[in-house]
Amino acid sequence: MRGLIFDGSKPRFTTDLPEPQPGRGEALIRPTRMGVCSTDLEICRGYMSFKGVLGHEFVGVVEAVGAKADARWVGKRVVGNINCVCGKCDMCRGGVSEHCRDRTVLGIAGRDGCFAELFTLPIRNLLEVPETLDDDRAVFTEPVAAAYQVTRQLTIEGRPFVTVLGDGRLGLLCAQVLSKLNATVRLIGRHEEKLELCTKWKIKHRLLDDVGLRADQDIVVDCTGSPDGLGTAMAMVRPRGRIVLKTTVAPPTSRGSGTDGASFDLTPLVVHEIQLIGSRCGPMPEALYALATDQVDVLPMISRRFKLDKALDALKLAASKQPDVIKVLIEA
Amino acid sequence: MRGLIFDGSKPRFTTDLPEPQPGRGEALIRPTRMGVCSTDLEICRGYMSFKGVLGHEFVGVVEAVGAKADARWVGKRVVGNINCVCGKCDMCRGGVSEHCRDRTVLGIAGRDGCFAELFTLPIRNLLEVPETLDDDRAVFTEPVAAAYQVTRQLTIEGRPFVTVLGDGRLGLLCAQVLSKLNATVRLIGRHEEKLELCTKWKIKHRLLDDVGLRADQDIVVDCTGSPDGLGTAMAMVRPRGRIVLKTTVAPPTSRGSGTDGASFDLTPLVVHEIQLIGSRCGPMPEALYALATDQVDVLPMISRRFKLDKALDALKLAASKQPDVIKVLIEA
Repeated sequence: MRGLIFDGSKPRFTTDLPEPQPGRGEALIRPTRMGVCSTDLEICRGYMSFKGVLGHEFVGVVEAVGAKADARWVGKRVVGNINCVCGKCDMCRGGVSEHCRDRTVLGIAGRDGCFAELFTLPIRNLLEVPETLDDDRAVFTEPVAAAYQVTRQLTIEGRPFVTVLGDGRLGLLCAQVLSKLNATVRLIGRHEEKLELCTKWKIKHRLLDDVGLRADQDIVVDCTGSPDGLGTAMAMVRPRGRIVLKTTVAPPTSRGSGTDGASFDLTPLVVHEIQLIGSRCGPMPEALYALATDQVDVLPMISRRFKLDKALDALKLAASKQPDVIKVLIEA
Repeated sequence: MRGLIFDGSKPRFTTDLPEPQPGRGEALIRPTRMGVCSTDLEICRGYMSFKGVLGHEFVGVVEAVGAKADARWVGKRVVGNINCVCGKCDMCRGGVSEHCRDRTVLGIAGRDGCFAELFTLPIRNLLEVPETLDDDRAVFTEPVAAAYQVTRQLTIEGRPFVTVLGDGRLGLLCAQVLSKLNATVRLIGRHEEKLELCTKWKIKHRLLDDVGLRADQDIVVDCTGSPDGLGTAMAMVRPRGRIVLKTTVAPPTSRGSGTDGASFDLTPLVVHEIQLIGSRCGPMPEALYALATDQVDVLPMISRRFKLDKALDALKLAASKQPDVIKVLIEA
């Protein structure tokens, strides 16, 4: 079977992967579209110490199911929650199973990902994709959910000033989602080409070099994916304001590949009594509904497509930091 | 006038300070008891780039008042809010004047402190001390307020597990204050002598080396005053839990004096969706009331007293990390 793996030192396309078998309660899925995420790139720099098939953004068709799994899922077009949980630990029983103590995460931790001809996920992780939602949009469900997670973690009072930092994939999605709140939202980035999408969406946007760091924003969402992002956020947020941190980067010790982690002098956080809120995966049903009802506009974010055989090129392009590259898709 | 200053390179006792004059709306105060705080020690390592008379914990008597100040304050025994604010900026008008954009802070930022024969503060910063509250207890008002600030920033639901990290002055006060909440509170430290105070207060306590880092605490309050504290807090808090950060340390670049700032790889904060809440000064009236009504037990925390002439020795002892030294007071 063909697929893109990270072997611990570099990403590598291979044709000799064993075909996965769906376990008890699992589905075997043939992905039709896959998305390249910054997390995939960070994994290739050592993040999470993951080895195996890369990829966690997908839409696909259930090809078979394992034991104790409802066969009616076969043939259905699905997206899926990437966290595979035990259902028994304190986190699962506490209603926050996405933080399951024993979880595996598709293409990120302890479970092969979706950049392959076939992969498996538990049936209970799957969501059927409405017919009206095509593959190109459905493949965005996971990152759109990550954007919605920010709205779940923030309570909005009054009409706060919100800055989304970073004009990459996640920043553009967060800006769209947050602009639906009772808030004054602006996106700040470094690339005119990417920010220009905000004109269509009627979202305020500015180049980072053109804005002052005035410590006057009620909320700043760091989607830069860069260790510098938090410093900028700290300079922009008002005292007693909130920073939502979406950026995860490989720690400095891993493979010495250039990033220096999200290290930061946190004293200003204490002096200004800032709240820093870590934010990860989000609600898949909410995201799927938002996409199906055209509340989020994702098609203009698709920059290039590659066939699975060229998945390594897809990864390289996504990592290239070319200013006109936003979302890179892989097709079966 | 005699006093203890930080001259930019080291703390120094001097006898040739000019006597301060109370400005418009200000009081001239003769302190009777002063407390040494970790912030004083950090300032001597470069924190806040402060130069001038050290000290911000005091109880004293108003000796005179400046123009436009109510003369009835003369002779009153007072404690005082250390943040001197403009009353006009967006923070002041927004009800968070402790974050005033133009503030000076007693002995910390732009204003000479209280480790001297006399010092000044705006009249509106002062609180009269009830007769029943003696100087030894009243001098704790400012740090007790800092402990109460934690309870203002946290909402308590259910009966959460709370760990206070650090058995120093602030940790012992936070443990006392938080133990009044509907929570299971424990203090974790490194010194049996200090932790032993908790037996009297009926607060659970353990040595750091004796506890597992199980990521099962709902709330962790970092009062370690050490850059390592946040790492320990991060290992103890459960996913989606909260860390209150009280630790401020001099940044690594300042004077190369050994600390390496509160730098930290924040990726686990994102992965586990932890909230990090900076916490600084707190409500003085609440603290004064708590002390006056014996809700907080501070007298056993007093380890040594020095006369003002020996203020440098007081500072050195507080910095010595001797396990039996908790609070060091200075007397006029």
